Amino acid sequence: MIGKALELIEKGKLRLRVVDQFIWEEEFGKRAAKWREAVKMADYVRLRYIEKKTGRHYEEIQKCRIDTADAKKLTTGIEQKIGAAKIPLGFAGPVKIKGDHAKGEFFVPMATNEAALIAGANRGIKAINESGGITATVIMSGMARAPVLEAKYMKSASRICRLIESKGKLYKELKREAEKDSKVSKLVDIKTYQIGNKIWVRFVFDTGDSMGMNSATKYAANAVRILTEKHNLRLVTLSGNLCTDKKSAHVNVLEGRGKKVQTEVIIKRNIAKKLFKVDVEDIVKLHWIKNYQGSALSGTIAGFNANVANAIAAVFIATGQDAAQIVESASAFTYAELTDKGDLRFGASFPSIEVATIGGGCGFGTARECLEMLGCFGPGKRPGDNAKKLAEIIAAVATAQDLNLLAAQAHEYELADSHIKLARGK
Amino acid sequence: MIGKALELIEKGKLRLRVVDQFIWEEEFGKRAAKWREAVKMADYVRLRYIEKKTGRHYEEIQKCRIDTADAKKLTTGIEQKIGAAKIPLGFAGPVKIKGDHAKGEFFVPMATNEAALIAGANRGIKAINESGGITATVIMSGMARAPVLEAKYMKSASRICRLIESKGKLYKELKREAEKDSKVSKLVDIKTYQIGNKIWVRFVFDTGDSMGMNSATKYAANAVRILTEKHNLRLVTLSGNLCTDKKSAHVNVLEGRGKKVQTEVIIKRNIAKKLFKVDVEDIVKLHWIKNYQGSALSGTIAGFNANVANAIAAVFIATGQDAAQIVESASAFTYAELTDKGDLRFGASFPSIEVATIGGGCGFGTARECLEMLGCFGPGKRPGDNAKKLAEIIAAVATAQDLNLLAAQAHEYELADSHIKLARGK
Amino acid sequence: MIGKALELIEKGKLRLRVVDQFIWEEEFGKRAAKWREAVKMADYVRLRYIEKKTGRHYEEIQKCRIDTADAKKLTTGIEQKIGAAKIPLGFAGPVKIKGDHAKGEFFVPMATNEAALIAGANRGIKAINESGGITATVIMSGMARAPVLEAKYMKSASRICRLIESKGKLYKELKREAEKDSKVSKLVDIKTYQIGNKIWVRFVFDTGDSMGMNSATKYAANAVRILTEKHNLRLVTLSGNLCTDKKSAHVNVLEGRGKKVQTEVIIKRNIAKKLFKVDVEDIVKLHWIKNYQGSALSGTIAGFNANVANAIAAVFIATGQDAAQIVESASAFTYAELTDKGDLRFGASFPSIEVATIGGGCGFGTARECLEMLGCFGPGKRPGDNAKKLAEIIAAVATAQDLNLLAAQAHEYELADSHIKLARGK
Amino acid sequence: MIGKALELIEKGKLRLRVVDQFIWEEEFGKRAAKWREAVKMADYVRLRYIEKKTGRHYEEIQKCRIDTADAKKLTTGIEQKIGAAKIPLGFAGPVKIKGDHAKGEFFVPMATNEAALIAGANRGIKAINESGGITATVIMSGMARAPVLEAKYMKSASRICRLIESKGKLYKELKREAEKDSKVSKLVDIKTYQIGNKIWVRFVFDTGDSMGMNSATKYAANAVRILTEKHNLRLVTLSGNLCTDKKSAHVNVLEGRGKKVQTEVIIKRNIAKKLFKVDVEDIVKLHWIKNYQGSALSGTIAGFNANVANAIAAVFIATGQDAAQIVESASAFTYAELTDKGDLRFGASFPSIEVATIGGGCGFGTARECLEMLGCFGPGKRPGDNAKKLAEIIAAVATAQDLNLLAAQAHEYELADSHIKLARGK
Repeated sequence: MIGKALELIEKGKLRLRVVDQFIWEEEFGKRAAKWREAVKMADYVRLRYIEKKTGRHYEEIQKCRIDTADAKKLTTGIEQKIGAAKIPLGFAGPVKIKGDHAKGEFFVPMATNEAALIAGANRGIKAINESGGITATVIMSGMARAPVLEAKYMKSASRICRLIESKGKLYKELKREAEKDSKVSKLVDIKTYQIGNKIWVRFVFDTGDSMGMNSATKYAANAVRILTEKHNLRLVTLSGNLCTDKKSAHVNVLEGRGKKVQTEVIIKRNIAKKLFKVDVEDIVKLHWIKNYQGSALSGTIAGFNANVANAIAAVFIATGQDAAQIVESASAFTYAELTDKGDLRFGASFPSIEVATIGGGCGFGTARECLEMLGCFGPGKRPGDNAKKLAEIIAAVATAQDLNLLAAQAHEYELADSHIKLARGK
Repeated sequence: MIGKALELIEKGKLRLRVVDQFIWEEEFGKRAAKWREAVKMADYVRLRYIEKKTGRHYEEIQKCRIDTADAKKLTTGIEQKIGAAKIPLGFAGPVKIKGDHAKGEFFVPMATNEAALIAGANRGIKAINESGGITATVIMSGMARAPVLEAKYMKSASRICRLIESKGKLYKELKREAEKDSKVSKLVDIKTYQIGNKIWVRFVFDTGDSMGMNSATKYAANAVRILTEKHNLRLVTLSGNLCTDKKSAHVNVLEGRGKKVQTEVIIKRNIAKKLFKVDVEDIVKLHWIKNYQGSALSGTIAGFNANVANAIAAVFIATGQDAAQIVESASAFTYAELTDKGDLRFGASFPSIEVATIGGGCGFGTARECLEMLGCFGPGKRPGDNAKKLAEIIAAVATAQDLNLLAAQAHEYELADSHIKLARGK
Repeated sequence: MIGKALELIEKGKLRLRVVDQFIWEEEFGKRAAKWREAVKMADYVRLRYIEKKTGRHYEEIQKCRIDTADAKKLTTGIEQKIGAAKIPLGFAGPVKIKGDHAKGEFFVPMATNEAALIAGANRGIKAINESGGITATVIMSGMARAPVLEAKYMKSASRICRLIESKGKLYKELKREAEKDSKVSKLVDIKTYQIGNKIWVRFVFDTGDSMGMNSATKYAANAVRILTEKHNLRLVTLSGNLCTDKKSAHVNVLEGRGKKVQTEVIIKRNIAKKLFKVDVEDIVKLHWIKNYQGSALSGTIAGFNANVANAIAAVFIATGQDAAQIVESASAFTYAELTDKGDLRFGASFPSIEVATIGGGCGFGTARECLEMLGCFGPGKRPGDNAKKLAEIIAAVATAQDLNLLAAQAHEYELADSHIKLARGK
Repeated sequence: MIGKALELIEKGKLRLRVVDQFIWEEEFGKRAAKWREAVKMADYVRLRYIEKKTGRHYEEIQKCRIDTADAKKLTTGIEQKIGAAKIPLGFAGPVKIKGDHAKGEFFVPMATNEAALIAGANRGIKAINESGGITATVIMSGMARAPVLEAKYMKSASRICRLIESKGKLYKELKREAEKDSKVSKLVDIKTYQIGNKIWVRFVFDTGDSMGMNSATKYAANAVRILTEKHNLRLVTLSGNLCTDKKSAHVNVLEGRGKKVQTEVIIKRNIAKKLFKVDVEDIVKLHWIKNYQGSALSGTIAGFNANVANAIAAVFIATGQDAAQIVESASAFTYAELTDKGDLRFGASFPSIEVATIGGGCGFGTARECLEMLGCFGPGKRPGDNAKKLAEIIAAVATAQDLNLLAAQAHEYELADSHIKLARGK
């Protein structure tokens, strides 16, 4: 069968994306019980095809199978699958979190290629744990999608904006239409932004434990029909880049996207001294020069932190999140100051951590197990509980990482030394 | 041995990070040939430890082993490893690239959880291939690290900046010192930025085929000693956030970081019509409203594109890049215009694609094979050739993806429909 | 008296700021009718003092008196006044405006030193008038002040934010307190932004025809007392730079500040050709490359226009506005596109034009007359009418200027030629 | 004559812009000695025209004449002049400056409508003077103009960029051509930025004591001809918004524009306590929260200061600068820290103060006298000396203002109280 399929592909008679279907039909006579097997064979066929084309054998990929199927249909997941990519997986923690949703101690799975990353997180976590844990709270939750619509004239566009912003009849109608196909998602807000006869209508949805980009798109599309059919607007695009997805943008800082999370830990002065060999004053001072003055000079919008991206990327990849959303999820405004008692108040504001515990890459393989490790796989007791828990955990470990990095850089040369040594396995 | 190690860990007598060493000594009597085995057992011990602590069994993680060892030492790679995370791996292409380094047709491995992503890339690639391929070129290559130094007074800081910027004796001395431990890397530029008595000294290195962050840090540290020892400056930190690493920042747009890459493809009007069912004028118009006007409204710095992040993240993860650098690598300024003949000129400027073909996660597992699939594993013939080739390929496939997305959105509702259907496996 | 005052000043026995009071008492025996005279003499005394100190005579300044007094008190206006600065004053127009508040034809006073500026505005106006006039509308009106408050812990800060944002009891109490001393101003919104235990509370007021910065500060201070006295918050500062006053900031783009104004004009294709010697397509194309692509590359936040600052600064100075607010008032997102009929739709979105027709520099001298020339001096029939009218006029003339500049640049070299020739008086 | 001119204007037989010429010919028989008189009459004719059209008399404008003529030609300055606008003029200081060019004590003229502004500057100046004065230095001087050029293909555009950036033959040719018509100006750098087949070529000129925008435009135009005539590029526009003129943009932060100025003052702890009633620690703390954290949240690019715009606008208007350039000239990154001795190190980095002491509005009226007051009217001994001196003075007084504002805000409610009281003349 594999040979036959390969032959057909090479002759151009079988397309790579439908190999699964072909094998299922030809080899397994369309028996539902054989779905998984058909997909597995199809993956192999495609890999063999690439091997022939590139003249190499890919042993590791061949061994690294992933089963993204579910019980309801033959093909799911990505197209032209050939297997799975492997990223080294470790863990940090346990980190003690006093969150609204994440309560207790968590072993945090982190997938990364970067040496010193987990060791760094762990040193930050140690300081946190010895100080009684880190507080974390989701202060806003909502996924945004912003279609662009076009009115005949600027004034008609203004009129529509005013109608929507006033939260009157039109707002309610849009909300009803947006929510009509949804079981869980709720429209939480609509804001409008205008340039001439164009308006960007930014819909925000609470989408429970899913990341929500697909549902927000669909529900926004439903609502938009009201505007195009009854209000003489023309749809330009369902996504006008003011959403803003997979780009670092200030609208997400002010309005939030996904989960807006705050963290806080009070590190005792003597604990910082013991673990980091620095005075807390030095951390505060460096924090301002590096995270704010340096970042201000660099022309950043949401990068007022030392390096939250490392931790956020590592947990995102471990838990099956949408890796392209690392771009805006790795936004943070850290803070560091002395308390009245001379201890260190440390934490960060994360405006847009976009996570899910259902859908996308969450449901299978190692990602599912990593979510289970955190106790937040699948839908929460109340919709959104698990996604918020995950967001709090990610914010906590990113804060730990940033704390450690600042403390480490507060030593002259320590960054260079430690980083390089660890990278080289010394 | 596993039981014994676990017991010691739980009693607090064995630290998780040194389990590898312990097993190698206890079980294998320090035989070099047994390194790999010791690490494998250590991974398992740690996983078992987590399983006990969290009261669950992680079957998939247990099965997903990754060998990050090399021939020279026992422990390499990340700390507290328990296995590997799996991300579904597919491929796009072959895409025809007319690059300076990437020449020919490439099957591009993409690791992602997002349905429709590879299908979308492929549709863009189809248009590219039918139009004769896409041009790509690296116009700048350099990894930056920007330490902060402190002078006694603002005027002394200014004086040092002037000395460095004038490229005279001090510049040469810094260059010599920066390069002294390097076989491959060359200092290509130093720029200074001042606020009062603080200066950010941004060193840029050509680091060949490695991503270069570690070496840039080390070599900058070497050079900085000249400034602290001979010029009465005090080191504040080796990284002052003007580098700028793992944050979206405009300094990387103007100065570049990693590889600055340009792409261009001329899509024939009739090909666009056939494949995308749209007139090229509609793509041009939408491109401006969405990628520029919408992005301008959103308050972005480097996000003037539809969605290059998807492709960039997928190839980064497949090829073992530093996933946190997706943040700034996913920067792009697209362009779309009509040629004199009425065809579509399309492409993008990518200011900071940070990639490696050696070091970090490149050397083992599926990542190595994905690099081999692209013909750019390991060091290039001339240093840097392979990293530049990889950057051109990534830019090409990201351009294809953006072209497709714009074309798709140029249809009303098509995004909503296609995206949702594919995600649901319909 | 003048000699005596000078002598006392030089001996350090009379402070420059109280010379007015001194003369009024000594020379005029505190007669209210002599206020103006006393101030005039005081101005002269101070000028004489400067002349002695700098060894020069300032003839023009001496001749250029300005009477900023009103009927109610001796000293008003600025401190250490010596006279007035003169800026050449011309006018553009009449421009035909179809605004919500500005209806009809307006001669627009412009104070500027820049040759070609008024000529340029006039050429744009000509195209506008021949096309039937320009539509303008204020879509948002509100002056913002954002104090920073500090809670004991991050969680208490979050709690307060939630209370305010939910628009419940606390919001109402803040609103009541904020409005208690106000006759005209109304609180229109409060938004909160948090970093750790700090919150930025952005109060927005409709302040009628005054620019509103002083009243917004005062009313915000009133409201803040509720938070400090009853909610255990500590005031850090009444202005936390998220207002944002006199800086270009994206919060003003999204939320607006002062007046958010939209403009639109449809320029007939043949009119553009006749007046500008260009095809409208060329204006559209240039607009995108320059105003969006170039601006995007430049790292701007609100500068997506060719040059609205010229017109805005000129009318601001002519009409006695706060010149430092040119910084954010000169923000604009232009647009240019072909209509279905092939004509040019042109206009801009101005997010934050901050103007007044009462208070500050509006009430006297040439500024008052310039406001009268526009028919918007003093309070409007309904509070705010005149300020909105002025904002619409400014937006209209800035749009005309941008249109002309784009059209001019659409000719190769025309900018260089015309600009230079005019500047040289050729 | 006035009546006759008015009649012709109303009949449409005489254009407003050529009234000067008309009167000079008709009334004065083209005698050169009568230029000034003719212009004065023309101003009056135009004012009368406006008065008739708007049905009002403008007494103040009529009295406020300004003579912008020079000895070489009839008409200079702005078009459609009717007189001059008056802005209240006061002065701050004397401020003690230890600059490279501004050395000594300076009375600084400030034109403003804002009460409390000069008083505030003076309080900051008092602290500066008592601390021994403020250091100021211009670290970069250059006016930029960035034309856009278009190549046939992206690759040809890249090739040109490389040729220019390598500073070889083409760079030298461009430099020679750019400087050919210039007596004073020197090309100091050319940088290129590419998006596809378009390149932004940013020319930077040292233009001596003139602001330089006109000359930079002209010289860039000269150089550009090399590129269009010999290198097959097409000029898109002489100004591609990457210059960046009259918009707040990060390119000006990194590269500088006009003058990049640094200031520094060490304020003794006890002086701050005495004058400001605050501990220096409180100024430092507030500075970070407001100027950096608040500004970071606000989405600004160059607004990391409390309020430098007030001082900069006031001196700009007093000294006849281009008021629209307040937009980018009012950029600043302040700093505040404790010295080792516990005193306050305070200052700011101003990336783009754009000033002139010759040309534009500098040469006549009150502006000229204000420049004379500062000892920097006209060309410097060496070209540029006076403009640099002026930039240092402006930076110094803006620093004083920012220091005072921070100190004032370090008192709870003080801003609200003092600001409001002063504005009301209490």
